[in-house]
Amino acid sequence: MATHRFRPTRYFNVLGTAEPCLRIANGDTVVTDTIDASGMDAQEMTVASRPNPMTGPFFVEGAEPGDTLAVHIERLTPSRSTGWTYSPLALTVLDPAAIADHPPQQRHVWEIDSKTRSVRLQEPAKGLETFAPPLQPMIGCFGVAPAGGQALSTATSAQNGGNMDYRLFAPGTTAWFPISVPGALFYLGDGHACQGDGEIVGTGIETSFEMEVTLRVLKRTITWPRGETIDDIFTIGNARPLDQALQHATTEMLRWLGEDYGLDARAASHLMGQVVRYDVGNVFNPAFTVACRIAKRWLTKRQDGGSSGR
Amino acid sequence: MATHRFRPTRYFNVLGTAEPCLRIANGDTVVTDTIDASGMDAQEMTVASRPNPMTGPFFVEGAEPGDTLAVHIERLTPSRSTGWTYSPLALTVLDPAAIADHPPQQRHVWEIDSKTRSVRLQEPAKGLETFAPPLQPMIGCFGVAPAGGQALSTATSAQNGGNMDYRLFAPGTTAWFPISVPGALFYLGDGHACQGDGEIVGTGIETSFEMEVTLRVLKRTITWPRGETIDDIFTIGNARPLDQALQHATTEMLRWLGEDYGLDARAASHLMGQVVRYDVGNVFNPAFTVACRIAKRWLTKRQDGGSSGR
Amino acid sequence: MATHRFRPTRYFNVLGTAEPCLRIANGDTVVTDTIDASGMDAQEMTVASRPNPMTGPFFVEGAEPGDTLAVHIERLTPSRSTGWTYSPLALTVLDPAAIADHPPQQRHVWEIDSKTRSVRLQEPAKGLETFAPPLQPMIGCFGVAPAGGQALSTATSAQNGGNMDYRLFAPGTTAWFPISVPGALFYLGDGHACQGDGEIVGTGIETSFEMEVTLRVLKRTITWPRGETIDDIFTIGNARPLDQALQHATTEMLRWLGEDYGLDARAASHLMGQVVRYDVGNVFNPAFTVACRIAKRWLTKRQDGGSSGR
Amino acid sequence: MATHRFRPTRYFNVLGTAEPCLRIANGDTVVTDTIDASGMDAQEMTVASRPNPMTGPFFVEGAEPGDTLAVHIERLTPSRSTGWTYSPLALTVLDPAAIADHPPQQRHVWEIDSKTRSVRLQEPAKGLETFAPPLQPMIGCFGVAPAGGQALSTATSAQNGGNMDYRLFAPGTTAWFPISVPGALFYLGDGHACQGDGEIVGTGIETSFEMEVTLRVLKRTITWPRGETIDDIFTIGNARPLDQALQHATTEMLRWLGEDYGLDARAASHLMGQVVRYDVGNVFNPAFTVACRIAKRWLTKRQDGGSSGR
Repeated sequence: MATHRFRPTRYFNVLGTAEPCLRIANGDTVVTDTIDASGMDAQEMTVASRPNPMTGPFFVEGAEPGDTLAVHIERLTPSRSTGWTYSPLALTVLDPAAIADHPPQQRHVWEIDSKTRSVRLQEPAKGLETFAPPLQPMIGCFGVAPAGGQALSTATSAQNGGNMDYRLFAPGTTAWFPISVPGALFYLGDGHACQGDGEIVGTGIETSFEMEVTLRVLKRTITWPRGETIDDIFTIGNARPLDQALQHATTEMLRWLGEDYGLDARAASHLMGQVVRYDVGNVFNPAFTVACRIAKRWLTKRQDGGSSGR
Repeated sequence: MATHRFRPTRYFNVLGTAEPCLRIANGDTVVTDTIDASGMDAQEMTVASRPNPMTGPFFVEGAEPGDTLAVHIERLTPSRSTGWTYSPLALTVLDPAAIADHPPQQRHVWEIDSKTRSVRLQEPAKGLETFAPPLQPMIGCFGVAPAGGQALSTATSAQNGGNMDYRLFAPGTTAWFPISVPGALFYLGDGHACQGDGEIVGTGIETSFEMEVTLRVLKRTITWPRGETIDDIFTIGNARPLDQALQHATTEMLRWLGEDYGLDARAASHLMGQVVRYDVGNVFNPAFTVACRIAKRWLTKRQDGGSSGR
Repeated sequence: MATHRFRPTRYFNVLGTAEPCLRIANGDTVVTDTIDASGMDAQEMTVASRPNPMTGPFFVEGAEPGDTLAVHIERLTPSRSTGWTYSPLALTVLDPAAIADHPPQQRHVWEIDSKTRSVRLQEPAKGLETFAPPLQPMIGCFGVAPAGGQALSTATSAQNGGNMDYRLFAPGTTAWFPISVPGALFYLGDGHACQGDGEIVGTGIETSFEMEVTLRVLKRTITWPRGETIDDIFTIGNARPLDQALQHATTEMLRWLGEDYGLDARAASHLMGQVVRYDVGNVFNPAFTVACRIAKRWLTKRQDGGSSGR
Repeated sequence: MATHRFRPTRYFNVLGTAEPCLRIANGDTVVTDTIDASGMDAQEMTVASRPNPMTGPFFVEGAEPGDTLAVHIERLTPSRSTGWTYSPLALTVLDPAAIADHPPQQRHVWEIDSKTRSVRLQEPAKGLETFAPPLQPMIGCFGVAPAGGQALSTATSAQNGGNMDYRLFAPGTTAWFPISVPGALFYLGDGHACQGDGEIVGTGIETSFEMEVTLRVLKRTITWPRGETIDDIFTIGNARPLDQALQHATTEMLRWLGEDYGLDARAASHLMGQVVRYDVGNVFNPAFTVACRIAKRWLTKRQDGGSSGR
């Protein structure tokens, strides 16, 4: 269970099959640097181009197509004291009739205060003089190489993960990705210091990070990304429209509740019908992201370990 | 500020212009009975037909087209000790390929325990033997008569409210509806003892209620329903696909932040970009429902009262 | 088989249950006047209000819920020499990013030349000096009263018909509507002198008409509107997004091919897979309209008459 | 203007940047072989794997990012006498409630009769004993390498073309693709002997072909694929839902009418409003395809050549 300190020198704008930057053992931890969505690093130097340049790919020994990669997010530490966002709201979240009067896109700088653990507009807008939401670091874009020789833009997302921009991909969360190539080929980047649901200004607070993740191979097969926080389990669907993303996430949750919690379709529906929560990861990127989430307090793992062990 | 105890004898399956069941003054409170989605009352007698038979309409003196009706939900008390749901999951939330193997729809009875304030399947499914989520009463369908002589089925929802099935329409919440006819003509019913996001089994726990609401007329104009809880403000969009419902809700929130909180489009986007939450009311009915929600801790009302007073 | 000449004095902005304007026998023909989408009649007097004021409702003796109303469009004669449209394109058909630069909506007058059977802008735009497409009259909005006491705006459409804006609802076509109330209660109006697919400027060439239709009751049940031209049969779905409208239309066609043409699901798919055509009626109204169309040359009616007779 | 006879030995399941199979001059013609969607060649040998293995990529001298590749489809000759389809209808075109009763997917063989120029099921279904639609060859999947190092599955489509399954990509048509890499890197394959709108059984009649195309580089920039037949011009949008595909196609047509035909947004809307036609290429693949089509009889090219010349 080694810890590797990796300093990237190349970045990728697609998740695909490429020469690994580092080979690690199953269960190892990686501490590495990520740059922001526009390619700016900790020194505010632009070292790569848009969109969402990725650090990676990391080759995990023993990972085979059909397996699952579990990525435990140990730590996300901003590596500079500013980030940036756009204003105003993205066109995808507005009634078409409201678009004509909408102001043009601008870029804004936020200060990231690691002591107070809050973020704040460098030039506050009128009415937001005291607005300083908490620092809530998250990973915007991460995942593994997709199947079939595809190379998918880091602007979008699919079954292999990618640019999901979901705020629960945060420290303490374990994310699962379906593996399609030997070694999994894991990429990460596009960290946000904070972001509401939907990434509705087209960005979180985009900044560079030192990220620490632990990578484990599970000998089981999943269809869409899954995740677990201290409180919840969740599944992810990436598609347009939101309806389809929600269908992917819900169907994956149905599978999970059967595999690991012994609930058949009818029992799962009783549970989900009363306690399910849906989150909108992003409603901005080419593929939208919906999470289907259930509090773990409602769940009891199968004694036999379900299909998760092997 | 009188309180009226109204016992309905007729029910309605559309929200439209009909003879008022009761005329009340602006600010009065109504205590009334509602029956469940299939027309069953507190004595488990079927006294009306599907879908979602409504109690009402209540005529509020002084309400004029262009005004807003504020409905404060004082209390929702189940009036019998059982409710019912369907299983399995609704087809709208599944990948089409998963539908073929899906079991047929069944109806299930739940016990509503007002002492422990929890609900429980009468015949628990395997794996759910101890599943007893809290009693969380909510109104599934309520709203006012729509514009232009329309009469809209209580199966669906629109700008005038209707079958939104959003779990935050709960005791303590104030809901706002845009008024299109003199007197507003307010209807309510379809109470649920509990329901997760999305109403994804096609029902909440459907039961009869004694509901208590206070109705006030605001001399201001809104476009889509709005609401306020102890912690949050929210706006509602009703449409398909979910994307369009989300656009309606988000655009309405943008208007609200301008009117009452003095935030222009750019400032509002800074706030929403970092702290907005989206909830899925229902993803089952003909029109889906999305709520755009913001915690009040981030908001400061305009000193001048914005456009809310007059 | 009488022919009735009916001159309307009232108009309706919803399709619902209302006092019939005329009672006719099954098989009778009605010759009547319709006014344009904004309420302007043959004398260019505004005699009713938006949207799409309807002539009707006509009560057809013998029509019962569960039956089908066949409306043969005998003749559509413009009753004045001008019509109007909007420019530019509707927002529903544009990429959101293209909306900001889009010019504001304007109204334009077209001359309807019944001799040359063509239409022409009164003030031609640059580049369209010779643009004079043929007069192609069609009915924008027609249908029957919906079920369950609903009254649906003539701005939209549903299973009962309504504002479908499909250019094959033209002379020579027979349209079928599912009947939900005694007498069917048939409405018509919103004639267009011409219109492309999708009604993408938000209007056809809107004008007043003398319309002649023959109404027959079929003792059979359909779910969505159907139609037949000299060359084709077609089914209609009305919903958003277009995907759902297309699903409704396709599923209805599958039923029709089984009922009347003896094709099971597999055979129907062989036929449709090779020769089906989809038309976009409108992509502008609250509900979009898709037609699923098959040329009659590929079809052979069942010898036993299928389920159409009784 | 040479003609190259190219016999492929490798096939590709993604459109991406790969070693060219052949370098040709601007204006050259290529005669080559394509295999069917499942990888079966003219001898009914499976020589490559799904989905839609492509012949190519062809490097066109002088093609630069920002240019447009014009592909004139000279000839599509089936290279064997059978093709295959699936039944029944794809799940994407059915109401969800109709899926449960739907029969399972089967594969069927069709005979391709090059003399009568028709196709016919080898084992006709009941009611289709005489069903023999005309041979109407088309290209299901073709296009150029996408931007940014992406490699996109031949199951789907995007701005660079791909698996559009549009029946007007047929002999006599010229298709235009936006070029993103030096040499354009053109791929083609997935020929169909016949196909209705929407590819609604999930296939056309899939077979191997000898295809002949002429490739020219235009020094102009387009955003989405365009095409021209003897009668029409058309633009293509690829996305989900159909609404978004239609928006892409319509917006691209608006640009084209401005660039080449001198019509501003208002004039273009007058023309399109009356004569536009929408076709559904496919409503089956991950991205759906909509064509926006206008008959050339309504169009007059700008005297100055618009932006098409160089």
